[in-house]
Amino acid sequence: MFRHVKDLQFEARPDGPDAAFARRLQEVLGGKWGEMTVANQYLFQGWNCRLPGKYKDLLLDVGTEEMGHVEMIVTMITRLLDNAPLSLSEAVADNPGGGAIYAGSNPAHFIHGGGGALPTDANGVPWSGAFITASGNLLADFQLNVTAEAQGRLQVSRLFNMTDDPGVKQMLRFLLARDTMHQNMWLAAIEQLKEDGLEDMPVPEAFPDSGEFTAEYSHTYLGFSSGTDAAEGRWAAGPSPDGKGEFRYDDNPRANAPEPLLPPGDPRLYGTNPEAAGSI
Amino acid sequence: MFRHVKDLQFEARPDGPDAAFARRLQEVLGGKWGEMTVANQYLFQGWNCRLPGKYKDLLLDVGTEEMGHVEMIVTMITRLLDNAPLSLSEAVADNPGGGAIYAGSNPAHFIHGGGGALPTDANGVPWSGAFITASGNLLADFQLNVTAEAQGRLQVSRLFNMTDDPGVKQMLRFLLARDTMHQNMWLAAIEQLKEDGLEDMPVPEAFPDSGEFTAEYSHTYLGFSSGTDAAEGRWAAGPSPDGKGEFRYDDNPRANAPEPLLPPGDPRLYGTNPEAAGSI
Amino acid sequence: MFRHVKDLQFEARPDGPDAAFARRLQEVLGGKWGEMTVANQYLFQGWNCRLPGKYKDLLLDVGTEEMGHVEMIVTMITRLLDNAPLSLSEAVADNPGGGAIYAGSNPAHFIHGGGGALPTDANGVPWSGAFITASGNLLADFQLNVTAEAQGRLQVSRLFNMTDDPGVKQMLRFLLARDTMHQNMWLAAIEQLKEDGLEDMPVPEAFPDSGEFTAEYSHTYLGFSSGTDAAEGRWAAGPSPDGKGEFRYDDNPRANAPEPLLPPGDPRLYGTNPEAAGSI
Amino acid sequence: MFRHVKDLQFEARPDGPDAAFARRLQEVLGGKWGEMTVANQYLFQGWNCRLPGKYKDLLLDVGTEEMGHVEMIVTMITRLLDNAPLSLSEAVADNPGGGAIYAGSNPAHFIHGGGGALPTDANGVPWSGAFITASGNLLADFQLNVTAEAQGRLQVSRLFNMTDDPGVKQMLRFLLARDTMHQNMWLAAIEQLKEDGLEDMPVPEAFPDSGEFTAEYSHTYLGFSSGTDAAEGRWAAGPSPDGKGEFRYDDNPRANAPEPLLPPGDPRLYGTNPEAAGSI
Amino acid sequence: MFRHVKDLQFEARPDGPDAAFARRLQEVLGGKWGEMTVANQYLFQGWNCRLPGKYKDLLLDVGTEEMGHVEMIVTMITRLLDNAPLSLSEAVADNPGGGAIYAGSNPAHFIHGGGGALPTDANGVPWSGAFITASGNLLADFQLNVTAEAQGRLQVSRLFNMTDDPGVKQMLRFLLARDTMHQNMWLAAIEQLKEDGLEDMPVPEAFPDSGEFTAEYSHTYLGFSSGTDAAEGRWAAGPSPDGKGEFRYDDNPRANAPEPLLPPGDPRLYGTNPEAAGSI
Amino acid sequence: MFRHVKDLQFEARPDGPDAAFARRLQEVLGGKWGEMTVANQYLFQGWNCRLPGKYKDLLLDVGTEEMGHVEMIVTMITRLLDNAPLSLSEAVADNPGGGAIYAGSNPAHFIHGGGGALPTDANGVPWSGAFITASGNLLADFQLNVTAEAQGRLQVSRLFNMTDDPGVKQMLRFLLARDTMHQNMWLAAIEQLKEDGLEDMPVPEAFPDSGEFTAEYSHTYLGFSSGTDAAEGRWAAGPSPDGKGEFRYDDNPRANAPEPLLPPGDPRLYGTNPEAAGSI
Repeated sequence: MFRHVKDLQFEARPDGPDAAFARRLQEVLGGKWGEMTVANQYLFQGWNCRLPGKYKDLLLDVGTEEMGHVEMIVTMITRLLDNAPLSLSEAVADNPGGGAIYAGSNPAHFIHGGGGALPTDANGVPWSGAFITASGNLLADFQLNVTAEAQGRLQVSRLFNMTDDPGVKQMLRFLLARDTMHQNMWLAAIEQLKEDGLEDMPVPEAFPDSGEFTAEYSHTYLGFSSGTDAAEGRWAAGPSPDGKGEFRYDDNPRANAPEPLLPPGDPRLYGTNPEAAGSI
Repeated sequence: MFRHVKDLQFEARPDGPDAAFARRLQEVLGGKWGEMTVANQYLFQGWNCRLPGKYKDLLLDVGTEEMGHVEMIVTMITRLLDNAPLSLSEAVADNPGGGAIYAGSNPAHFIHGGGGALPTDANGVPWSGAFITASGNLLADFQLNVTAEAQGRLQVSRLFNMTDDPGVKQMLRFLLARDTMHQNMWLAAIEQLKEDGLEDMPVPEAFPDSGEFTAEYSHTYLGFSSGTDAAEGRWAAGPSPDGKGEFRYDDNPRANAPEPLLPPGDPRLYGTNPEAAGSI
Repeated sequence: MFRHVKDLQFEARPDGPDAAFARRLQEVLGGKWGEMTVANQYLFQGWNCRLPGKYKDLLLDVGTEEMGHVEMIVTMITRLLDNAPLSLSEAVADNPGGGAIYAGSNPAHFIHGGGGALPTDANGVPWSGAFITASGNLLADFQLNVTAEAQGRLQVSRLFNMTDDPGVKQMLRFLLARDTMHQNMWLAAIEQLKEDGLEDMPVPEAFPDSGEFTAEYSHTYLGFSSGTDAAEGRWAAGPSPDGKGEFRYDDNPRANAPEPLLPPGDPRLYGTNPEAAGSI
Repeated sequence: MFRHVKDLQFEARPDGPDAAFARRLQEVLGGKWGEMTVANQYLFQGWNCRLPGKYKDLLLDVGTEEMGHVEMIVTMITRLLDNAPLSLSEAVADNPGGGAIYAGSNPAHFIHGGGGALPTDANGVPWSGAFITASGNLLADFQLNVTAEAQGRLQVSRLFNMTDDPGVKQMLRFLLARDTMHQNMWLAAIEQLKEDGLEDMPVPEAFPDSGEFTAEYSHTYLGFSSGTDAAEGRWAAGPSPDGKGEFRYDDNPRANAPEPLLPPGDPRLYGTNPEAAGSI
Repeated sequence: MFRHVKDLQFEARPDGPDAAFARRLQEVLGGKWGEMTVANQYLFQGWNCRLPGKYKDLLLDVGTEEMGHVEMIVTMITRLLDNAPLSLSEAVADNPGGGAIYAGSNPAHFIHGGGGALPTDANGVPWSGAFITASGNLLADFQLNVTAEAQGRLQVSRLFNMTDDPGVKQMLRFLLARDTMHQNMWLAAIEQLKEDGLEDMPVPEAFPDSGEFTAEYSHTYLGFSSGTDAAEGRWAAGPSPDGKGEFRYDDNPRANAPEPLLPPGDPRLYGTNPEAAGSI
Repeated sequence: MFRHVKDLQFEARPDGPDAAFARRLQEVLGGKWGEMTVANQYLFQGWNCRLPGKYKDLLLDVGTEEMGHVEMIVTMITRLLDNAPLSLSEAVADNPGGGAIYAGSNPAHFIHGGGGALPTDANGVPWSGAFITASGNLLADFQLNVTAEAQGRLQVSRLFNMTDDPGVKQMLRFLLARDTMHQNMWLAAIEQLKEDGLEDMPVPEAFPDSGEFTAEYSHTYLGFSSGTDAAEGRWAAGPSPDGKGEFRYDDNPRANAPEPLLPPGDPRLYGTNPEAAGSI
């Protein structure tokens, strides 16, 4: 169950309107790596979590915090949309650069949202439930959470360079700091899972690789592209990070099964079948 | 540029047909974490990679291998779809369990695909370009690649328990072994990036957290959920994995900005505005 | 900002597992009219709301409650997925009806979700941000909220007839009661908006219909389908609900503009153009 | 069965081209609340309608009219796209504001559509069948139809302020007048349903709320957000609009079920399970 | 402008209910190649058509007919959904095969549609505006229309083998006959376009291939796959169908440009850049 | 199995950056008719092909070539994105037309892609597996392939007129030449299929039209739109292209079945039912 506090976790107040930047800021609200994604991802992972205690608590804590970040960015976008030019003639009348603001803004912010934020990315594509994963395997999911926070911090860093507004930059600094914490946190949680003996690499550890394939496939780098630069990396020789083998390099992987010949299909499906091809 | 070898990297031949399992196997072909995702993700990351040498080679090598895995799974699904019952009466006539095969299969495999594989997940939802990310930041993307291989191996492990067919299981063993290699490989690549001095945590390392927030936000765990179980984890005390701070725990995070009051909107957008609310 | 209470608003505990019903229950979690829709819709409407006071409070209150309903249904689905058969042979071994449970369940619940709920509808199609609207006009949106609660209660009523499980039925009774309250609440809020002089029908009231069209178009029923049964309804005669006119019925609406003839297109777009058609 | 009359219901002729406005006008063609939505929604509701007579007639009449509105808007957009600049250099050569027209237009109008309208919204996101609902319950659906016409009229009103073109404005006036009629019509149809004894609030009326919950949940406002402004609304006290109860206000709703503890998952799904957590 | 005739173009009455087949029939209603696709595709092509006369008439005629086919299939599906079992226990009580009907049906037909048809494919994925194309080039689009009718007739043929119901089969025979006509019609229209001198192969004929490439690329078959079976086809030797060249076969196509080396990216985007790689 | 050659099939090097054109070029990369579509479509058709020999070889050859075209366009886009202005102030500082470049570019190219190409169309909508079809019937699919190459060449022709960059134009000339070849190739393949006796029109030839309908429906043009211009086309008289009949023209098609009256629905679905309508 949730409770809502009307005050914001951090201030979300631009020094001036900028409808074109409002469009861009949508990416970290409703884009693939935006706040709607991390909020929903951590909550679903937490609700589905079958382990009581600190891991479930962690997921629900952070998912709840991210809901508050959704709120902050919605607020910022709504304020950035104030006083936007509705037509080109009005935009140009305002100032010489007004045409670019008009052209670079998202029409749906006005026609659909009436000057409010939308649950979409910077191009107006709606947020999708497919953006989140809660697999039930915490190590697999914590790795996803690390990259979600890394992609998120990366996007906020880029947005920081796309605006001169001090108020916007201040909120972005706050988000960057939380992304720093959250990257560290999920990395620490991965270590904790291993220490607690709950899971290890390769995921899922409980499913062993078949002995017959171990030598040939589970630690061998196969080079399918021209050039052998990849042989110089740590992934091509030496011990593997899971501590279970030694990397090998094979620059000429061979096909191990003949060209697949398919039997004729069911004639009631009216495909093009081999038996009809007798005359070829 | 690519070349195609008609032989398969590994055999993809079931011992018998099973249209209901064919539907399930689609998840690792065209689902979010399926082979279409990893093939396209690694290729886009490689093509967009601005670093010459071993990293670009690595991405294009593995992306090319994954295209061959797409081919193997398509072949397996097509063979599993042979001899499927087209109607319930036919299904039941075949054997007592035939009704469940009829009901548990994907109608589009026959109506749309004519007995062939489809670029969709196990529920027939089409593969989406949104499943892949190539951010230009290799550390952020290699972390995504680790989880892609972990989620992929997890899904193949689950499918292994959903079939008794020896031929299917043999191909799944091969895929599991490659996922083992690929998890190790991306972990090694992350270490390599750090050793080469190209990137570090938190991503992007080149963007510093603001000094004014460091103490309060960039290493502090904020507990927004009831209970304090999360305080027992490694993420709540001790040095942070990035080596740049000490975790703190705060079980009572406060809102730091007042309830946001929005100005009236543009009356030409016909929203419900405060000034009209004078009489309330 | 949000806080999370780990206890549930209401118990979500089935008396037994039922993976096929778990699939069906997803419709009111991640379907178009499910709890994810109402939670996000009310929160976005509230955050974007430019009116301070009771309306904004109302939206944020109810959106927050609906987040707790998402949590309850996720919990129920996760419990319904316990002990599900993973393969047909296992399903049939369990009991005679097991084949239908196997065939009627959602494979992604196991392959992707590991036995947990997903942010999708009953067919596995992901929840979409396009399901929600926050237009900035409260009357238009409260009307949407009324139908959201009506569609939601309708779907829960139907699900009530699709299960015999007492624990499931008890949670559905709770949801039905809340949907009853919420239908009443949004209807009351519509009345309140009118009483407060903030908006009225037709939306947006502030934009007048053009005088030249009022007689002919703004209160006239146009019959484009064969038959005149529709003339018997209240919409064809008598005062209109907005109190601004009298309904008229016209069973033979005429086209008022000639067939549109388009000019030739830009030849650089290589369309099929009239000027090239001289010889026809 | 349908017949097509080549003449338009109303003139759709701009006074001049404007590719940037053509992009915006797409919102009311192929956006969530556009003409494709209402046309298809009313037709599906009519075709699925199990009541013979005036209601079915009403739905098919209006759905057929809306098909004609789709045609008008397609025609208008196609004309607005004439003479658009294809490149930035051409745009700037034309006139100083040409750059904003180039930048603010939808590239797909030219590359994909060859200067014609597309079945998408203003951002180029395709129209989706998920935009429409035909639930079989006419009261629930007529409420949706009211809001569809309200959102539609709201969007057309906003577009009216985004153009100076007299021909465009004239067509928008016509659409506004029809939206006025249609809002009134669906409101009247709701009253008619109630008078005919076919349905009432709360939907579905035939499904009663459980007696045990009536007092506590079906008429009680629960305040989950800080502040009690919402207590001042009509939804918090007095008789409920369905005439079946009295509203109550509860500013401190309590969780009524303990934190959900989930049993261990099936080990064959390789999730992170409690039993493995013994050593924590 | 359209008019609706309540009678159907052809009878749509099954001899009995079959909810599992109703799900399958959705593919030719709301699937990629279903009736919603052809209806909308022909209408958009007609409305956007800049040629007056017989071509525009053709497109609008057939698009209007297809709207009537949408209506027929909706009607058939609605009738097939009658008397469907809502739960597994009810399904099994009815008859031994009832479990497969329950499991093989689409839950959304009941929960969302209340026993009515939906604008989705056989898996419940919504119809998308992306399914249709109206490019402005009639030859390109008529070729798409040929395949749309071919794919459509193929799917109806397959469905014919998935049911024993005489009433269903009778409607499918009608649809097959119309698909026969429409395949022939679009082929004839392609010939007509050529005869009228409006367009020819390759599309767009008005854009010439560059002389420098003609010999090497515009009529040469390049073999990128192992094996040279393809050299035996008509596409590898002899005159090309456009009458403008002779096919050639090249079984060893070479890369004609060096490996692309990308410059460093903008450091403000925080990608992994070459200059930082100096130490590698 | 695939192998990757790092050199490109053809040079992809612009003479200068142009972020607005980079956005437009995405249409032929990840749009409905872009290179991702043809690559995946031909490969899926080839892998699912049940005919050994030249047809399967053809499909896999060309699919593999198209993967190389994906690579070329990704490379071109990445280079066009160099030196793009990140903010409006920077854009305007650069040059007077910079505002239009800023406004006309795709923000996701920078925020999400870090200056690299994305698997989306020109509006940022992700590529979808629904764009491709592999039906198992080669004639139906080769017709789709003809139109895919025609639509593709049409779009490249249009893009040719949207840029002045010599390097871009050179790559477009190459793509145009290959599209010329591929249109010819699929037309030749259609002829080959007929010569080999594998399939003919109407597709599927193996499914006969019912005798009772042949006269009336399978060769009769039905005019549902006002006007009879369509009677002048080849589709209204004379022999049909399949050689199996004579076209007829009927300008007054009649409905052949009465208005469908539906039975009452299951009352447990709470729809609006006729029996409840007794009092109307």
